[in-house]
Amino acid sequence: MLTLDYANCLADRVGSHGLDTALFDPASQPTQTARALTASLEKTRGTGWERWRLLPHDPVKADHLHQVRRAVDACRGRFDNMVVLGIGGSALGNIALQSALSPVTYNLLPSSSRPGPRTFVIDNVDPEQFGHILDWCASAGGGLQRTLFNVISKSGETAETAAQFMIIRDVLRKAMGSGYAGNIVAVTDPSRGTMRQICDREGFTTLPVPDGVGGRFSVLSPVGLFSAAMCGIDIDALLGGAAEMDARCRRDSLLENPAALLAFLLVELGTTKGKTNHVLMPYASSLYLLADWYRQLWAESLGKRVDKTGETVFAGFTPVKALGTTDQHSQVQLYREGPNDKVIGFLEVHKFRHEVSIPTGLGVEALSYLEGRSMTDLLNAEKRATEYALVESQRPNFTIKFPVIDAAHVGQFIWLWQVATSYAGLMLNIDAYDQPAVELGKQATFGLMGRKGYEEHKRTVDSTLTTTRWRT
Amino acid sequence: MLTLDYANCLADRVGSHGLDTALFDPASQPTQTARALTASLEKTRGTGWERWRLLPHDPVKADHLHQVRRAVDACRGRFDNMVVLGIGGSALGNIALQSALSPVTYNLLPSSSRPGPRTFVIDNVDPEQFGHILDWCASAGGGLQRTLFNVISKSGETAETAAQFMIIRDVLRKAMGSGYAGNIVAVTDPSRGTMRQICDREGFTTLPVPDGVGGRFSVLSPVGLFSAAMCGIDIDALLGGAAEMDARCRRDSLLENPAALLAFLLVELGTTKGKTNHVLMPYASSLYLLADWYRQLWAESLGKRVDKTGETVFAGFTPVKALGTTDQHSQVQLYREGPNDKVIGFLEVHKFRHEVSIPTGLGVEALSYLEGRSMTDLLNAEKRATEYALVESQRPNFTIKFPVIDAAHVGQFIWLWQVATSYAGLMLNIDAYDQPAVELGKQATFGLMGRKGYEEHKRTVDSTLTTTRWRT
Repeated sequence: MLTLDYANCLADRVGSHGLDTALFDPASQPTQTARALTASLEKTRGTGWERWRLLPHDPVKADHLHQVRRAVDACRGRFDNMVVLGIGGSALGNIALQSALSPVTYNLLPSSSRPGPRTFVIDNVDPEQFGHILDWCASAGGGLQRTLFNVISKSGETAETAAQFMIIRDVLRKAMGSGYAGNIVAVTDPSRGTMRQICDREGFTTLPVPDGVGGRFSVLSPVGLFSAAMCGIDIDALLGGAAEMDARCRRDSLLENPAALLAFLLVELGTTKGKTNHVLMPYASSLYLLADWYRQLWAESLGKRVDKTGETVFAGFTPVKALGTTDQHSQVQLYREGPNDKVIGFLEVHKFRHEVSIPTGLGVEALSYLEGRSMTDLLNAEKRATEYALVESQRPNFTIKFPVIDAAHVGQFIWLWQVATSYAGLMLNIDAYDQPAVELGKQATFGLMGRKGYEEHKRTVDSTLTTTRWRT
Repeated sequence: MLTLDYANCLADRVGSHGLDTALFDPASQPTQTARALTASLEKTRGTGWERWRLLPHDPVKADHLHQVRRAVDACRGRFDNMVVLGIGGSALGNIALQSALSPVTYNLLPSSSRPGPRTFVIDNVDPEQFGHILDWCASAGGGLQRTLFNVISKSGETAETAAQFMIIRDVLRKAMGSGYAGNIVAVTDPSRGTMRQICDREGFTTLPVPDGVGGRFSVLSPVGLFSAAMCGIDIDALLGGAAEMDARCRRDSLLENPAALLAFLLVELGTTKGKTNHVLMPYASSLYLLADWYRQLWAESLGKRVDKTGETVFAGFTPVKALGTTDQHSQVQLYREGPNDKVIGFLEVHKFRHEVSIPTGLGVEALSYLEGRSMTDLLNAEKRATEYALVESQRPNFTIKFPVIDAAHVGQFIWLWQVATSYAGLMLNIDAYDQPAVELGKQATFGLMGRKGYEEHKRTVDSTLTTTRWRT
């Protein structure tokens, strides 16, 4: 089970930059509030935009596992490559799962050593990235016939995914004729929307984006599960880990509920101590991209101009990703000596899946202390040293510890942060499930791309941004 | 030539969150100051820790190109794989150059389509990452005999690189016996230090980390040039771009000197408008990892507790990397509605090296606006729409525009930020070239790893961090 160590967030350790331990007393206001919020979340559990909390429990779990496995079985042996097309919540989780649970050399391995097809998640509309991957699949990768496209879009109208889809549909049709539909698995709305209509018309295999599950809370739905299962990731264990964490996150004691506690620490340090930058710094390269997933969850859920009463609050915290030990040589100078405006969250791994020992015999005195030690010893000593150095500079920090990296613990991690986000939304009194500020950019894009009905947006953009000066 | 468009940093555009245009008048204080700082930088140019400014100019340039090319020539045809071992300034730039200038599919391409060996930059001591890459090279990758290791460490005592080196030295010796030295090219101090001694003893090919060039200013020295040249990157053009930018960055007019201007914008917005988070958001996947290189430069150079007079200032800004369009679906909600504490720097590309067109013929009304357009059109429309949306929310932002992505423009970009960092250091009156806060963590690591003479550090760490409570 993951543990959360937050001693370094307390005033005992980091002076006035930390929280008073009295805040955690059984009779304290935060403890009482946490109890009330837990009760409130129990009431809304499985309703409205809180339906993501149903994902790791039957009957939703059983239904999704069944549908995903059926789709995976139908694809087995047919593909050398899988290209996931999606963006934001339809890509960040998929990338994070691959990175955490498949080896870094996965795509290079011969097919006999790989549990699934080579996997590319294209989460952008960069013509070079897209073109190179597509060209590679079409030639050296074994051909488009042997390439599966996993298109993920609830509505089908997200411009990036729509453009990607239109391109691959065209090249697949040219390469394969009418049989091309067998190379597409779409994850989309089960009953309505543009992508649904296209899927019905063209006969793609589809999997559901469940109702009431927002993009950034969807990684443990078929959105993330299909591509993970295709690569041999144990999706049952992933959901099992989430369910285990869910049980812990229903406890009404602040000190025993890791999601409530994590939210409380970050919101309290953010709002009362000015720690508005929330760094996530895994000491494990494979967990680094989980930080991108976390960035979306934390930024888009909590970054809100108005609270639920309509008052302007400019809420939110800036999530920052960092990597240990690498960023000790890049960011720690700033973290220790720059503005004291951060909380640093470490991820630590007790036992890695692969160990490397540092050999004896170099015969250089200055390096003899490394001889015979494991790389894990060094990595975790560096982490502990950094933690200590931050405490010495009164910089609050905490550690989430993985006993091992596996699907179950990654499931726990995802769940911990998703529930913590719900708590943080309630603590800040903002709507954690909307993203109103994204609309204007979408409309402006439509305008600039010449979509009918958006001409006025183009005029406004052009008149706002046009200048002949202030360029060098 | 790169252009810098900063109209959206001005009060005309973003109200009180922007800078007054009067600041840029020829007689204004900042303009006068910039002139004085330019004169000051001309005086220190090529001395002390400003010796990195010599890199793109002869005789240093010619000497480095000669040495690097000789080393590359000696390696030509002998290797299927290259593993770069380094950390911080000995890795971030190398990774950024590969990512910007080699295709994303580079390592997957057959050797006939690749100008150099497959390339892995290992910038961590993660046993899984390290073990998997080493195992892969030893087996499926063609064997350790066909694997070149580029070890980069000025002193040889950086624990991470030392550990990596000790491991690969051992496996190479076991695989190849005494001939193993031919598989190592070390970039290190030309005359002293632990790695220098090892190189001399064991007969490795070496290239210099030049004196007076700090790690984060070293990418355009052999530190970055060797691995780049091995992959067919035009290092002459890279340095040529840097030299071109250098000429622009010597101009004494604030408005005509892009480095002085960039530094002024960020320091002024940071110190007078509370914009302390400095986001770099390329709209090009290949440029994304340049943001990691920038993060080190900006954080480690400017994040300082005391200024040059010894006064406590907690200077510095938090560099944040983001990616367009991806992070429109992740961070832009926060950037528009959260705390107004950021400056967003976009990177925009006029013409990509590869284009993809969105085909006609889908026959879906809601998506017809995309038909026949290029992916670049969509990408750059999204960027412009985001820029507009930020302006609407009074969030200052600027754009650095690449006409194309190539070695010359990447060289310009690197140089622009390096000189801007010098200016920013002077503007903040801090030492941009030291990193005093990194020492404590290094000593604590030595203590925890049992290095002789550091026992007291271990005791202090343990007594500071030991707790039995505050864990869940």
